[in-house]
Amino acid sequence: MKLRTAVLGATGYAGFDLAKLLLRHPKVAEPLFLARGTEAAGQTLESFYPEIGGAKSYPLVPFSWELLAGRGIEVLFLATPHELSRELVPEALAKGIRVVDLSGAWRLKNSGHRAVYGFTDQDAALAAKLDAEAVYGLPELHREEIRGARLVANPGCYATSVICALTPLVRAGLVNRQCGVICDCKSGVSGAGKKPMQKTHFVEAADNLSAYSVFGHRHTGEILEQAGLNDDELVFTPHLLPIPRGILSTIYITLDHAATADGVESILREFYADAQWVRVYGHGKLPQIQYSLRTNYCDVGFQMSPDGKRLIVVSCLDNLMKGAAGQALQNLNVMQGWSEKEGF
Amino acid sequence: MKLRTAVLGATGYAGFDLAKLLLRHPKVAEPLFLARGTEAAGQTLESFYPEIGGAKSYPLVPFSWELLAGRGIEVLFLATPHELSRELVPEALAKGIRVVDLSGAWRLKNSGHRAVYGFTDQDAALAAKLDAEAVYGLPELHREEIRGARLVANPGCYATSVICALTPLVRAGLVNRQCGVICDCKSGVSGAGKKPMQKTHFVEAADNLSAYSVFGHRHTGEILEQAGLNDDELVFTPHLLPIPRGILSTIYITLDHAATADGVESILREFYADAQWVRVYGHGKLPQIQYSLRTNYCDVGFQMSPDGKRLIVVSCLDNLMKGAAGQALQNLNVMQGWSEKEGF
Amino acid sequence: MKLRTAVLGATGYAGFDLAKLLLRHPKVAEPLFLARGTEAAGQTLESFYPEIGGAKSYPLVPFSWELLAGRGIEVLFLATPHELSRELVPEALAKGIRVVDLSGAWRLKNSGHRAVYGFTDQDAALAAKLDAEAVYGLPELHREEIRGARLVANPGCYATSVICALTPLVRAGLVNRQCGVICDCKSGVSGAGKKPMQKTHFVEAADNLSAYSVFGHRHTGEILEQAGLNDDELVFTPHLLPIPRGILSTIYITLDHAATADGVESILREFYADAQWVRVYGHGKLPQIQYSLRTNYCDVGFQMSPDGKRLIVVSCLDNLMKGAAGQALQNLNVMQGWSEKEGF
Amino acid sequence: MKLRTAVLGATGYAGFDLAKLLLRHPKVAEPLFLARGTEAAGQTLESFYPEIGGAKSYPLVPFSWELLAGRGIEVLFLATPHELSRELVPEALAKGIRVVDLSGAWRLKNSGHRAVYGFTDQDAALAAKLDAEAVYGLPELHREEIRGARLVANPGCYATSVICALTPLVRAGLVNRQCGVICDCKSGVSGAGKKPMQKTHFVEAADNLSAYSVFGHRHTGEILEQAGLNDDELVFTPHLLPIPRGILSTIYITLDHAATADGVESILREFYADAQWVRVYGHGKLPQIQYSLRTNYCDVGFQMSPDGKRLIVVSCLDNLMKGAAGQALQNLNVMQGWSEKEGF
Repeated sequence: MKLRTAVLGATGYAGFDLAKLLLRHPKVAEPLFLARGTEAAGQTLESFYPEIGGAKSYPLVPFSWELLAGRGIEVLFLATPHELSRELVPEALAKGIRVVDLSGAWRLKNSGHRAVYGFTDQDAALAAKLDAEAVYGLPELHREEIRGARLVANPGCYATSVICALTPLVRAGLVNRQCGVICDCKSGVSGAGKKPMQKTHFVEAADNLSAYSVFGHRHTGEILEQAGLNDDELVFTPHLLPIPRGILSTIYITLDHAATADGVESILREFYADAQWVRVYGHGKLPQIQYSLRTNYCDVGFQMSPDGKRLIVVSCLDNLMKGAAGQALQNLNVMQGWSEKEGF
Repeated sequence: MKLRTAVLGATGYAGFDLAKLLLRHPKVAEPLFLARGTEAAGQTLESFYPEIGGAKSYPLVPFSWELLAGRGIEVLFLATPHELSRELVPEALAKGIRVVDLSGAWRLKNSGHRAVYGFTDQDAALAAKLDAEAVYGLPELHREEIRGARLVANPGCYATSVICALTPLVRAGLVNRQCGVICDCKSGVSGAGKKPMQKTHFVEAADNLSAYSVFGHRHTGEILEQAGLNDDELVFTPHLLPIPRGILSTIYITLDHAATADGVESILREFYADAQWVRVYGHGKLPQIQYSLRTNYCDVGFQMSPDGKRLIVVSCLDNLMKGAAGQALQNLNVMQGWSEKEGF
Repeated sequence: MKLRTAVLGATGYAGFDLAKLLLRHPKVAEPLFLARGTEAAGQTLESFYPEIGGAKSYPLVPFSWELLAGRGIEVLFLATPHELSRELVPEALAKGIRVVDLSGAWRLKNSGHRAVYGFTDQDAALAAKLDAEAVYGLPELHREEIRGARLVANPGCYATSVICALTPLVRAGLVNRQCGVICDCKSGVSGAGKKPMQKTHFVEAADNLSAYSVFGHRHTGEILEQAGLNDDELVFTPHLLPIPRGILSTIYITLDHAATADGVESILREFYADAQWVRVYGHGKLPQIQYSLRTNYCDVGFQMSPDGKRLIVVSCLDNLMKGAAGQALQNLNVMQGWSEKEGF
Repeated sequence: MKLRTAVLGATGYAGFDLAKLLLRHPKVAEPLFLARGTEAAGQTLESFYPEIGGAKSYPLVPFSWELLAGRGIEVLFLATPHELSRELVPEALAKGIRVVDLSGAWRLKNSGHRAVYGFTDQDAALAAKLDAEAVYGLPELHREEIRGARLVANPGCYATSVICALTPLVRAGLVNRQCGVICDCKSGVSGAGKKPMQKTHFVEAADNLSAYSVFGHRHTGEILEQAGLNDDELVFTPHLLPIPRGILSTIYITLDHAATADGVESILREFYADAQWVRVYGHGKLPQIQYSLRTNYCDVGFQMSPDGKRLIVVSCLDNLMKGAAGQALQNLNVMQGWSEKEGF
């Protein structure tokens, strides 16, 4: 029998990409698309995204725990604001529903890092317990824990891009922490969400580039925790690119000790030997945003400075795929013991 | 002494382009930038558009008739919603201030056409008088009337593009009215205004094209009245182009009687012999959007069908320049008896 | 056993999209990717398109009839210039290999229309025989003939878009032929091919729009023949859109006799009742380019003028999918008696 | 009497922007537009760029020293490949013509840095003498030398962006050289020149981002020499942005010693107190590409890390204006003793 899932937030960009993926997945039944509050209930998913219109209709049904129980939902995907996710997850787990949460609500282990979100949990003790229990949903780092997890915190888009590039090198001891790691990251506009804002207006975003959230982006904590760096060892600067989707991160590493390009390539290749969704490029071959667009790949390439003292790592992914919906599906595959490529 | 002007609505796209033009105009004093309501007063123009920041600051001051009188404002530019323009113009004229209105409020002579705006004038008789008095601000058609006008109704962007291409040919009797004229028009996103909407969100507008307001766009009336066509003799279809600015109109004419390419070119060249801001292209050379971008030109080119029975006219302009702010400045130049190229 | 196919021209845009589709098709073996001349032989497909790189490599092997025979190739896809296709097809058929040709070489039945290509066939009699035999590969019009065809002439991208919108209405007798049908079509830049040219340079194509091949585009003949119009009953104007892919056609029809929106909708829905890859929209709901992007759908919507005298039909598709590679795969599915949705 | 100038290379992107600027400059006569070889002679500038078409024509005349002499050319602008510039400059200077060279031919003082260009000078001794004599044409650094210069080497676009941001801070001793300065730079596609290439094809450049020339871009030497850094103290990584024009450089500095945001702002403001074309932003206000587009400004903003140990400087300019043609005109203004804002 096919797996029964529900998606809350399918009208957002990440939620909709997830909806499309789930609708194609051979082992998943047609998901229940949920609407919360009065906003979208009664409407259909195809009224927001006519591209999936045609023979079938996909109604948005009002969220209720009774409905989830009645439909026997086994896995709930939350593509919701983090406050809402913070509110719904305890109840979902209590009812025996596994959750893949695409928001930032449950990603951080360090309470200092978590402070940027300003959570106001109703039951602080339970929240703290779930903070500890939640598994950071990057299968390349936490495959085993995801398998049995009740709550998977799907990583941030920028964070995935940086962590995939950086972690193998940090673990191999290559990174000089004194100089710190510089992560200059560029993301397409869908990363800013579907709600229209001045900065996402076509006229302001097109033919433009801007840095934002300098020294203060929420994904910083995730990167530090997962890559294994201290707070002052990383600089992460996001930029808004005039493209609909895609992230490219240029990561600058001062090497801690002498290394060869071959050595670095080996470290990356070994680390990702079993990974289905990370592609390591040979030395000097750098990924571009187009290469991973509309796929679930995170592409990692690098180049060493002629003097062997520095490393530039370039990492690309599609922020709505490996950076959000694709990763959520990959997590589902891991949780269910399916092939990680299933449904892609 | 330099001319004293004021601009209401300088924070919108057309208003801002007008502000920049006026600030460079050698015969115009630094304009007064007005804010209405509490919205923007106290802010500066450069806080909305940092590109004009630098040595000087341009404060937005609260609109009041006293202020206009105190500063001796001679010409008021309204880059405002048409309802507001409808409200302010009678008072401005009563106070002896000439107005160039960039909205659709005063463009239409035919009350049937005007119905689409649904005006609710406080003083209907006065409004009717001003509807009659207002001069349609296309200098290529109404240069003499603009010169003495108290109220210049600056044309719509699409309308300018179509009227410039069509009017000489209609007047020359070339147009077969039975089959009608088809105007397939495409505009950049700034034409939809600065306020963020779903359709102007970068992710929805980029990599896309859509027709809108089919058989129902407000500029239709202007085109009919100015080009001299009856209601059922024109089809005008706007499309939203994934570019910040620029309009290209492809206009399909069935010829009423045999004509030669040379003949058509002569008609156009003669019509625009004195025009400073319309460029007529030779037969078979068609303008592109880039050619007139950031200029005040309306470019008109055409191609005749091999059988001599049809004509395709392509007309391009910058919707914020000849389609709005540039035309407003051109109108000012005409009103003041200055060269039409002054300040460009 | 899986079907054995080969692709000549897989490094072009349409050829590459076809390669990706064939590689995913469950009933097709990994295709043979052919290179002709010395150009690309020895290189790999992933060296041109790193996005398909990863675990596998896809070598480009030099084209030879011996190789095709040795590998038991059953279907050959030609994504080649029309001259080359004109040269290769007679030989392929003689060797018992079925061909789906993506060029314009075999699409036209009317020798007058064919003149624009200026073919110089070595064996004119055989070429004439094959011109007659070739089936125009639009399954929505020629499903039965495609099934048994040896040579399928895959339609042009613009042509598909216009024919799908127009044919049902012409056949229903709705179209006033005197005024003619106006087809204002806009295509993304991939339609111009992969070879760099001045007009496809990013700086010239971006922030721009231009009409081209006015009264002289090669797809005109296809449209006339398939939609069933005479030469002077159609105007087709292509425009170059600043987007990578996608076509939107705005089609203007003067109605021959009174009709209702419901009536028109019925005509379209009945015509496409069995079509898997054409989506008919309800009256007043118009497709946009984004809706069919990266799918094989041709979307058709329409709006009637308030006076019931005119019809605007908007048709959208992805020029590399339903306009080229996707249609080729759909044709393959029909030729093999598979579901038309197989492999998508 | 107006200054007599000539431009070789006016059909390229930078050359054309320079042509437009010179044509508007009130103290410069209409420039002579030169063509070399047979390529463009006999054609007109407006045949390449129809946007300047209209009342006047701008013929491209074959380059010859006799012509330059006959016309009394005082200043020659070279927007040519560096090899050609290397060849022509000695002769021009010998003939008493001052040169502003937009290529990289004469920018570098350090012969090690110059090696990347691989010059093959006919008269090596003379070339060496001119290498020493050439003035690096960044008026903000070399105003006095430019005034009397015979040969002004107009800076690279990336280089201008980085040098303007970095030099004041290096000179103030704020930069920790051990960790090095990281310059992550992004440029619009016009920076790659007008000649069509695969990487500048719209379909490859749009919806994409890529790093290139990693650890090996030719502008590196200029930056090192002008900012005053040693070879291993700078990393400069260019990226190709999907926009027509504009550069944004994100520059990462580890501070050598404690500093305050106010202190940094003072350093920048003092350094540029007399600069007409550099705008310093207040702490935390960062420039975006749109702000300086189509102006000659280099915009410099910065943000300090909360711990006061790092500085991120963001610098923006238009690569064809302050990054090429605008800077060339600014240099002309300095050379002639005119206001640096003249003609803009």
